[in-house]
Amino acid sequence: MDRATLADRLAAELGTANVVSDPAELDAYLDPFPIGLDEEFAPALAARPGSVEEVQAVLRIASETQTPVWAVSRGKNNGYGGRSPRQPGSIVLHLERMDRVLEVDTVSGTALLEPGVTFEGLYAALQAAGGEFWPSVPDLSWGSVIGNALDRGMGYTAFGENNAALAGLEVVLAGGEIVRTGMGAMSGSRAWQIYRPGFGPSVEGLFSQSNYGVVTKAGIWLMRRPERWAAVDIAAFGEGDLAPLMDALRPLKLDGTIPGTVSTADVTGIASFIAPRSHWEAEFGFGPRDRLPADFTPRLMEQFGLGRWNMQFPLYGSRGVLAARIGEVRSAFERAVPGARVTIAEYDGDVPAAEVPEPHRTRAGIPGMYVERMPYWWGGRGGHIAVTPVSPITGEDALRLNRIVRRRFDEFGADWFSVFCGLGRHMLNIAQIMYDRDDADQAARSRELARVLIRDLAAEGYGEYRTHIALMDDVAASFDWNEHALGRLHGRIKDALDPAGILAPGKSGIWPGGGRP
Amino acid sequence: MDRATLADRLAAELGTANVVSDPAELDAYLDPFPIGLDEEFAPALAARPGSVEEVQAVLRIASETQTPVWAVSRGKNNGYGGRSPRQPGSIVLHLERMDRVLEVDTVSGTALLEPGVTFEGLYAALQAAGGEFWPSVPDLSWGSVIGNALDRGMGYTAFGENNAALAGLEVVLAGGEIVRTGMGAMSGSRAWQIYRPGFGPSVEGLFSQSNYGVVTKAGIWLMRRPERWAAVDIAAFGEGDLAPLMDALRPLKLDGTIPGTVSTADVTGIASFIAPRSHWEAEFGFGPRDRLPADFTPRLMEQFGLGRWNMQFPLYGSRGVLAARIGEVRSAFERAVPGARVTIAEYDGDVPAAEVPEPHRTRAGIPGMYVERMPYWWGGRGGHIAVTPVSPITGEDALRLNRIVRRRFDEFGADWFSVFCGLGRHMLNIAQIMYDRDDADQAARSRELARVLIRDLAAEGYGEYRTHIALMDDVAASFDWNEHALGRLHGRIKDALDPAGILAPGKSGIWPGGGRP
Repeated sequence: MDRATLADRLAAELGTANVVSDPAELDAYLDPFPIGLDEEFAPALAARPGSVEEVQAVLRIASETQTPVWAVSRGKNNGYGGRSPRQPGSIVLHLERMDRVLEVDTVSGTALLEPGVTFEGLYAALQAAGGEFWPSVPDLSWGSVIGNALDRGMGYTAFGENNAALAGLEVVLAGGEIVRTGMGAMSGSRAWQIYRPGFGPSVEGLFSQSNYGVVTKAGIWLMRRPERWAAVDIAAFGEGDLAPLMDALRPLKLDGTIPGTVSTADVTGIASFIAPRSHWEAEFGFGPRDRLPADFTPRLMEQFGLGRWNMQFPLYGSRGVLAARIGEVRSAFERAVPGARVTIAEYDGDVPAAEVPEPHRTRAGIPGMYVERMPYWWGGRGGHIAVTPVSPITGEDALRLNRIVRRRFDEFGADWFSVFCGLGRHMLNIAQIMYDRDDADQAARSRELARVLIRDLAAEGYGEYRTHIALMDDVAASFDWNEHALGRLHGRIKDALDPAGILAPGKSGIWPGGGRP
Repeated sequence: MDRATLADRLAAELGTANVVSDPAELDAYLDPFPIGLDEEFAPALAARPGSVEEVQAVLRIASETQTPVWAVSRGKNNGYGGRSPRQPGSIVLHLERMDRVLEVDTVSGTALLEPGVTFEGLYAALQAAGGEFWPSVPDLSWGSVIGNALDRGMGYTAFGENNAALAGLEVVLAGGEIVRTGMGAMSGSRAWQIYRPGFGPSVEGLFSQSNYGVVTKAGIWLMRRPERWAAVDIAAFGEGDLAPLMDALRPLKLDGTIPGTVSTADVTGIASFIAPRSHWEAEFGFGPRDRLPADFTPRLMEQFGLGRWNMQFPLYGSRGVLAARIGEVRSAFERAVPGARVTIAEYDGDVPAAEVPEPHRTRAGIPGMYVERMPYWWGGRGGHIAVTPVSPITGEDALRLNRIVRRRFDEFGADWFSVFCGLGRHMLNIAQIMYDRDDADQAARSRELARVLIRDLAAEGYGEYRTHIALMDDVAASFDWNEHALGRLHGRIKDALDPAGILAPGKSGIWPGGGRP
């Protein structure tokens, strides 16, 4: 069906104002940081439903016209494709108008949200409800709470793994059927947001990084505001300090002393939060095509009082528990990494946001835009993608990952930015690949670097936790055990739940009918 | 196919010793606490595979002969059907011979197990590995770690929800395909037991309380032995003290001060752990058909120094953290429940098991058989089933649940035993229905009591977390939102993964083809 007719049909259901088909306006539905040609991932149009019924209407029209649908919440998944669909010609189902905080339960500490609710919106609703509970906010708070959780993003309070804090989904399947997961499958349930598994097989995990349904409501667990909290920042000055840092961290993660997401950034990455490359080129006297000079790192460390590796995490507790934890953490890291600088700032749980310095805010669930400069390292309209392997939290893995990754960054002439995040029992190594989207050669080389790294890392047993739309097939291919048995299982479930294959073909490497486009 | 021919075909693959078809030996594969006729849930025979390949062989024969297969691990799921299959005439796939602890990772604190590994076996393996990590053991340690976790059973360390501690499954699907979930889907993965979600939709939850596959390996997260721990026991003496107990507990669960499973037992339930009803009949002078007399509860409390409600939980931490927590917990409960007795026993993390009194042991992951007398309350060969609604952790819910449940227990002439377990953000109210399996009338009335309660509770928004094979359809029917949308989704996935419908038809109320037997 031609675009105009499709737009008319959608407009008849959603209103003209909620269907975007003008090519100029559709630019907002392209990847802001493309690593290929726009045409590769260009939507046919975008539809902005205001209700579950309108989501059903869009899916019905999509089915009748055999048009694929790519759902985004706020559409701020930048670095992973933004709002661009994997399959060109898709309808982008943009859920930002469904932005109600449906319930805040200040007894059990949960909220029920629509997908258009941002971290800022949730924070405001929780403050209005008394501030007794905190959201888990990521570095950039303009995105959707649900979208971030479904894509397995991270926050910085005790609930660092936003996906693990989901509790109770409402999902519209491709055929329009509405399902509530877990205890929500009972009419009038008192425990939809309380107990995630439900009775019988738990289907909730099926809808993360998924093309099996459109999530229209989700419950989320909140963190109870502690009596006291602390922002711990550890600067370790030697390149090799990374290994003992991670080995000291692991037992403190295992026993829950250190909750949430522990971020450990190399100093080069931090440079990108401060200013673009051109600033440092002028400051330190190197050229726009030069490699970062050998003295770049030491000079940055000197100028900003930074470590070679900069770890940050929160501690929480009553006055007594926090005091004990601070002592234990300080002595563990000072013992493991002689010469490291451990800085600890303590706060009351109800400290006003304005009194918390910006770099500490996410650790108290306060939204912000701390790293918004990062994508513009190379100038212009910027660009970044990440390769992010999962590993145990060990120094040995951290060093091995850096060796694998750095070799290829150097080979491709990319500036090597490495951040390690420790969560639960796993570590994510975010290897940021920066580029200027308007430099077609650099963008193409960045894509190739990512593809090569995905293969290199898989050869050593490291899989990705999340990826850009252009790399989903590569990552899916790397999960190859028993002739891609899990991928085949994903495909069987896809075909059972979406036999017409209209929902997000290719998302996470899952294509209808087991095929490829 | 007749039983003898089927047995021959299985014996050709597994060896004669591993196929049980003699009717007398097959008694071991009947529910030890039946609430119906044996014929209702009688297997055709049992097969005991020794390897994944033999599991595949059994499934192949089952498919070829259209015989349903009911998988059990150790087969100690007593109170829920034991080893009996939901569908009579099934092959019981008894996995006890697959009992290897395949790996203990003392770096990241995980283990990889086969389904035949018992809690005792895991404990022994962890002790042999240095004792630095603890298993999460339930009241009875003879069962399978994996079986318990897949059925969403409970333990008593910081990892009270055994299902949530699963990390990485190997599953044989009905057609014989072997799938590894999460990061295990990558050959040579370094993170199969480290990071549960994997890339793309997470299928791991599909295999809990499920008939979608046979789990042949599973990873499990272990608790790191703390420096110190404490067993906290709180006796509250008034019937109405239950509400403030639960309301005081909730915030301490939300902020992680109290981890794991908090059990709060009424004193009548505790009587069943000590001695059968006949003992108390003699002791307190009432007859075998009499209601428990009004002075039963106060006399028990007096004689054993028990509360009307008896809460128990662990605390863990370094010396400093534990001391702070003990102070906070003591003052929170003494303030909330005036007159309650708070008893706290402190231990070093590495205290030898023999120095820990039996009622404290599960809180340090030490296996035992603490409640093994409980099923024999009514004498004879005993019997018990539970109705176990899920609710928020509030005093109001606890009192409402007791009102709903007690009215029916009284109406049916059953002795009312009530235990509340607080985990995560939910509470389970275990309403134990006791009977003598050899008293056909009492067993039948117990079944009817459970069915009525499932309906009563659902009408108030309370769903079950787990149930006996005879009640699975009743519980599934209670999850009725949007015309049983979740049940229909379960059915679609069932038909996609097991089109011949051979795996555990009726488990959790899921039948092949959406039908009924």
